[in-house]
Amino acid sequence: MDAPAVYQIALDAMGGDYAPAAILEGARLALEAHPGLFLHLVGDEARLGPLMGTVGLKGEFATRCAIVHAASVVEMDDKATCILKEKKDSSIRVAAQMVREGRADGVVSMGHTGAAMVASKMVLGTLSGVDRPCLAAIFPNMSGRPTVLLDVGANIDCRPEHIAQFALMGSIYAEEVLGIQNPRVGVLSVGEEEGKGSATTKEAAQSLKDMNVNFTGNAEGRDIWNGRFDVIACDGFVGNALLKSSEALAEGIIGSLKAVFLEGILTKFAAMLVRPGLRRFAKKLDYEEYGGAPLLGVKGVSIIGHGRSNARAVHSAIRAALVSCEHRVNDHIQESLGRLLSQSGTNQPS
Amino acid sequence: MDAPAVYQIALDAMGGDYAPAAILEGARLALEAHPGLFLHLVGDEARLGPLMGTVGLKGEFATRCAIVHAASVVEMDDKATCILKEKKDSSIRVAAQMVREGRADGVVSMGHTGAAMVASKMVLGTLSGVDRPCLAAIFPNMSGRPTVLLDVGANIDCRPEHIAQFALMGSIYAEEVLGIQNPRVGVLSVGEEEGKGSATTKEAAQSLKDMNVNFTGNAEGRDIWNGRFDVIACDGFVGNALLKSSEALAEGIIGSLKAVFLEGILTKFAAMLVRPGLRRFAKKLDYEEYGGAPLLGVKGVSIIGHGRSNARAVHSAIRAALVSCEHRVNDHIQESLGRLLSQSGTNQPS
Repeated sequence: MDAPAVYQIALDAMGGDYAPAAILEGARLALEAHPGLFLHLVGDEARLGPLMGTVGLKGEFATRCAIVHAASVVEMDDKATCILKEKKDSSIRVAAQMVREGRADGVVSMGHTGAAMVASKMVLGTLSGVDRPCLAAIFPNMSGRPTVLLDVGANIDCRPEHIAQFALMGSIYAEEVLGIQNPRVGVLSVGEEEGKGSATTKEAAQSLKDMNVNFTGNAEGRDIWNGRFDVIACDGFVGNALLKSSEALAEGIIGSLKAVFLEGILTKFAAMLVRPGLRRFAKKLDYEEYGGAPLLGVKGVSIIGHGRSNARAVHSAIRAALVSCEHRVNDHIQESLGRLLSQSGTNQPS
Repeated sequence: MDAPAVYQIALDAMGGDYAPAAILEGARLALEAHPGLFLHLVGDEARLGPLMGTVGLKGEFATRCAIVHAASVVEMDDKATCILKEKKDSSIRVAAQMVREGRADGVVSMGHTGAAMVASKMVLGTLSGVDRPCLAAIFPNMSGRPTVLLDVGANIDCRPEHIAQFALMGSIYAEEVLGIQNPRVGVLSVGEEEGKGSATTKEAAQSLKDMNVNFTGNAEGRDIWNGRFDVIACDGFVGNALLKSSEALAEGIIGSLKAVFLEGILTKFAAMLVRPGLRRFAKKLDYEEYGGAPLLGVKGVSIIGHGRSNARAVHSAIRAALVSCEHRVNDHIQESLGRLLSQSGTNQPS
């Protein structure tokens, strides 16, 4: 048997609320789980070096990872575009640069979302045939499966053909990386009937009928959570509002309920009694399982994780990058868009 | 002391999942709480008549309400526009007609939202100075106070001046009906920094700076829930997606947690132990308290409640209509918009 193909991922070791410790721990979990993985740990080597042993990056694991020095970090109050000028030596920019130069297949960051998007879009560049890269959020829904919502913030004003492309890229990601067969794809609108929606969403829906996706019609806001669709496409303004609102609402409800359980001895006892059920519920809604938002449509793989990612979420994000490489998500996107462009009589850009 | 002014509300007694019984019960609660209220109960008199006594609409209450016959009802699978032609005799249309003819000050319906919007917009007409009426959702936020989000579905494609007007109308409603002093008003965007957003939201924000509202800047999706803003304006497409997504997410989480408590004897015992805390939490997030979505900018008052409204929510919706009348919300809207129009040198339409 041949040795498995090895994929190289550049990991921004400095980005994220719990960086660098949680990032390195996540790296170790990923190396443990995936023999065909090599990790470039990008960041301040003076800080990363001493941590390696502590988090278990030694022995065999140490042979499958290497520190790549980056002198600065994008801070939360930096502008996203700082990586283009003032912070060219930041960990996210250096990590993206490795992909551009062919030294890594993908980049993973839990840091400044805007900077990670700018780095991926500007340094990696856009895949041939793709008009606009987009950011896909993967929500666990009430049926315990994932729903892909995209775009969630890479593009503010979108034309219908952009939304249709988002849907197509989301469908490929859902099938190849999340393992959903023949994903049900919808366009977000204000009602499920075909005539409902804006001029933009109606035209996007029309385009999707001619594409090689399982277009299931208009989705509504509620369909993000009920499992009726696997992929829901919308412009980045709406998607961003939905993402931020949903996070805050879910956290608010769950936080308030936690506070109820912590009120006194009796309520803490009650918490013990319902713990197995709560664990099952938490597992169903476990966003850490999906690990991050892929930026689809760029040359190379880019996964942008939540700032609050713990080691497990970091591992999931690395896995998502690895599976994207293994399943050649970008090749599928280019093939599908190329086929569309040739169908429509346009020359495919090379 | 003078007798209090009496306001007449036309109540669609046939609209809603629990109509007509829950609607009439809500009517009785409202009559009990508000001496200055007269209710027209619009619907099938053959069904409403026998119910009156059952729900306690007798004695003094019976002198402050009257059945107004309407031969049909808009069903959930009817088109919203059916009230213009096929169902001119529907309860919602007849109720709106009463406001148009000056026989009632406001209309309240828990029925088909689209039909109630069309009836209010087309039958009542638009207030002078208002470009587009809009539907406002009132969300209880985690600080236990309400956040007004508007528009949530009356207008799909909006220009900046529409969004600015929504914000102004929402601010007046928040102050006059919800009792929030100097409401903090925001425009929904993708980031709180001033430069963030679409061309439309940036221009809307710019307009709001010149208006007589407490404009606090850009709001993000999370701000619907954290109490940072009292009023958040957006186009009806985004608002509708946020409303439907939030409802489904909150119901999904709460439903799953209820199921955990119902699993067995021990978990039911646990539920008993945390019940006081859960009750306080439920009270904080109690949408029934706000009772419905006002359609702002129409001639007369129109409150559109949730289809699943129980008697208490019906009462709250009637109260919202009554307070809108008492506080002359429409006069305030016309005054504010008239002032703006005269400032900008345009003649105010009469």
